[in-house]
Amino acid sequence: MSPKKNIFYAQSGGATAVINSTACGLIETARKHSDQLGKVYAGQHGILGAITENLYDTSLESDSTIAALNHTPASAFGSCRYKLKGLEENREEYERIIEVFAAHDIGYFFYNGGNDSQDTTMKISQMSQKMGYPLICIGLPKTIDNDLPFTDNCPGFASVAKYIGVSIREASLDVACMAPTSTKVFILEVMGRHAGWIAAAGGLAAENVGDGPHIILFPEIPFEVGQFVAAVERAVQRHGFCSIIVSEGLRDKKGEFLSSSTDLKDSFGHTQLGGVAPIICHLIKRELNYKCHWAVSDYLQRAARHIASKTDVDQAYALGKAGIEFALQGKTGVMLTIERTSSNPYQWDIGTVALEKVANAERKLPRAFITEDGFHITDSCREYLSPLIQGESYPPYRNGLPQYAKLKHILVPPKLKNKATT
Amino acid sequence: MSPKKNIFYAQSGGATAVINSTACGLIETARKHSDQLGKVYAGQHGILGAITENLYDTSLESDSTIAALNHTPASAFGSCRYKLKGLEENREEYERIIEVFAAHDIGYFFYNGGNDSQDTTMKISQMSQKMGYPLICIGLPKTIDNDLPFTDNCPGFASVAKYIGVSIREASLDVACMAPTSTKVFILEVMGRHAGWIAAAGGLAAENVGDGPHIILFPEIPFEVGQFVAAVERAVQRHGFCSIIVSEGLRDKKGEFLSSSTDLKDSFGHTQLGGVAPIICHLIKRELNYKCHWAVSDYLQRAARHIASKTDVDQAYALGKAGIEFALQGKTGVMLTIERTSSNPYQWDIGTVALEKVANAERKLPRAFITEDGFHITDSCREYLSPLIQGESYPPYRNGLPQYAKLKHILVPPKLKNKATT
Repeated sequence: MSPKKNIFYAQSGGATAVINSTACGLIETARKHSDQLGKVYAGQHGILGAITENLYDTSLESDSTIAALNHTPASAFGSCRYKLKGLEENREEYERIIEVFAAHDIGYFFYNGGNDSQDTTMKISQMSQKMGYPLICIGLPKTIDNDLPFTDNCPGFASVAKYIGVSIREASLDVACMAPTSTKVFILEVMGRHAGWIAAAGGLAAENVGDGPHIILFPEIPFEVGQFVAAVERAVQRHGFCSIIVSEGLRDKKGEFLSSSTDLKDSFGHTQLGGVAPIICHLIKRELNYKCHWAVSDYLQRAARHIASKTDVDQAYALGKAGIEFALQGKTGVMLTIERTSSNPYQWDIGTVALEKVANAERKLPRAFITEDGFHITDSCREYLSPLIQGESYPPYRNGLPQYAKLKHILVPPKLKNKATT
Repeated sequence: MSPKKNIFYAQSGGATAVINSTACGLIETARKHSDQLGKVYAGQHGILGAITENLYDTSLESDSTIAALNHTPASAFGSCRYKLKGLEENREEYERIIEVFAAHDIGYFFYNGGNDSQDTTMKISQMSQKMGYPLICIGLPKTIDNDLPFTDNCPGFASVAKYIGVSIREASLDVACMAPTSTKVFILEVMGRHAGWIAAAGGLAAENVGDGPHIILFPEIPFEVGQFVAAVERAVQRHGFCSIIVSEGLRDKKGEFLSSSTDLKDSFGHTQLGGVAPIICHLIKRELNYKCHWAVSDYLQRAARHIASKTDVDQAYALGKAGIEFALQGKTGVMLTIERTSSNPYQWDIGTVALEKVANAERKLPRAFITEDGFHITDSCREYLSPLIQGESYPPYRNGLPQYAKLKHILVPPKLKNKATT
């Protein structure tokens, strides 16, 4: 039997409520296979930890701390927004990563992230082959945007979906009860740069006639002032109030973000959004003179482990577990996927897709999931979304607040003399 | 024995996560005393229901629907922002209310609300005496702002406090894990026009060194740019990131709201706030060039029944129950209060205060609850706040979303010919 190889696992991109559930599933399963596997080293701040040789030794964390990861939001080992350049442009960085992996006897590379991160997984897989370094490379999906192709859904999304569904249901009740003498229109801005999955999820709260949200503004549907204002007025006349979900990625007919005046770029070259809700609010005041309130959930929505979907937690955990199991079978160069085998009753399984196919691709909300008028979700969208938010998975509380995992975060002693910085 | 009199109960002012728990406690207790009490009529949209003779007959709601009020946010019978004018200015309106009460054999008046609402309770109490109409008048406290005097705390506040504590804890973990390559500063704007109670509650999330929030901006402490910017820089240098709570009511040294450019008035004559977080965000970008995100919870925080404090729910219910019990003892002209009899272990009881004392008065956060530098809470503040957020009280879920009470909302047939409109 060959000597046991260690595992490098890292978390990348925006944090979610359940990415640590994947870490939990992976570490717990690796511990069960300690006859075949070495230690799990976690990259400090994603792939940067590999470059800088900052590896957390998870074997020094207790079983109960690792178990607590399953109810802890954000990225317990630190995440990063750092996209590796092309292999030829930046050969040195890849060589450095392989050098660190070799120094620490890493035989398995797991990268837990979204679109940009899976591009990184793919490049490292290609580089290890070119350099003749044997490395099992597996991508573990994660993104609240739910925009990865080839997987039925992405871990992290369903918990945001649940949070937005719960929040808009509660806020809509609030607005409804005050509307005759106070606020008549409420706007909740949600995340989702280019895909309206999160905005769509808010639509689940509207189960009966009159329930909010009455209007959903999707990034996929160009914003048209006249039609929107008419829809707001109609809702107020029919129901006494109007509750609205707006995606941060809402664009006008020219394709410009409504919020683009901020004109900021984040380190991936995306425009940093936020703040379309106040724009919509001012528009409604100007056109209809209704008292109007708005909310922007921002990071609250993606960190909201307190109201995570149990389905989401279970799937995130299962992906980490399956990652180890597939790796032991020798699978490499793939991203794991969630396959829906049945919608009613909802059943799912873990599958795989080649990294080449998934890297940098993006899946938008299908037009068939949006009603003809562009302002709500269809029954087929409900059928897709509803199973994902099922079940509650509450964290433990102490003194009224959720108790999240506290890791020791002990770094593996470095073995290389040259210290890279990024 | 005198004939059984009916009860008029109404909800006023901004909705909360637990005002319906008070309604639940009141209606369930009244049903237990059906030998002495008639029906509970609930005003449609607060006191407006009395003026317009729109009274919901709660006796037509099932026991299970009434029980479901205990886990339902917002105002189940509708609320209002409507302040009665002085007795002499608007005698007609008071006479109309008493006329409606007489027509429906109302012997008990319960008004569930905050400062402005208790002013209404007091005036109706005075008017009924002047007109010689026998009416038991009891105010039931409610306000997320926690700014009513003579009561240790106000129902509704503790659930917002818990929501803000949970949310800032979760969002801070998110920011911390991404900070080296992404957002370094996060700002959460919270409610509280003139009193920093809600902002202070966010401070409970900071249990250990480095935990967010690192800075709290209170309405009680005039905002000073230089000191604030220095504090942000210090937090980023020490902890790698900075998590901030800002009260919507933050003011500059001249006493002007930072958000006052909106310059809107709500129907009580307050400036409508919201949007100070983006101002702080722009300031930090300009002065420190840190990547910065912000969130505004707005109505989400006060409607968040999904993460309500069990202590809050229990107290809100107990006030409704005690309202009936005190009324049967003939108590009138009072607002019920929560009296803290011990902090450790936390123990409380229900007391009373004369309406004359409480109406329109306001209780600010004591200076001793704020640290000397003005940016955080003291241990005495923690001791006050911590017991209030203890315990979780989860609503039931179906299809992944909370199931809130659906009332039939059947109006009592009107008995008066003249139909008042407001």
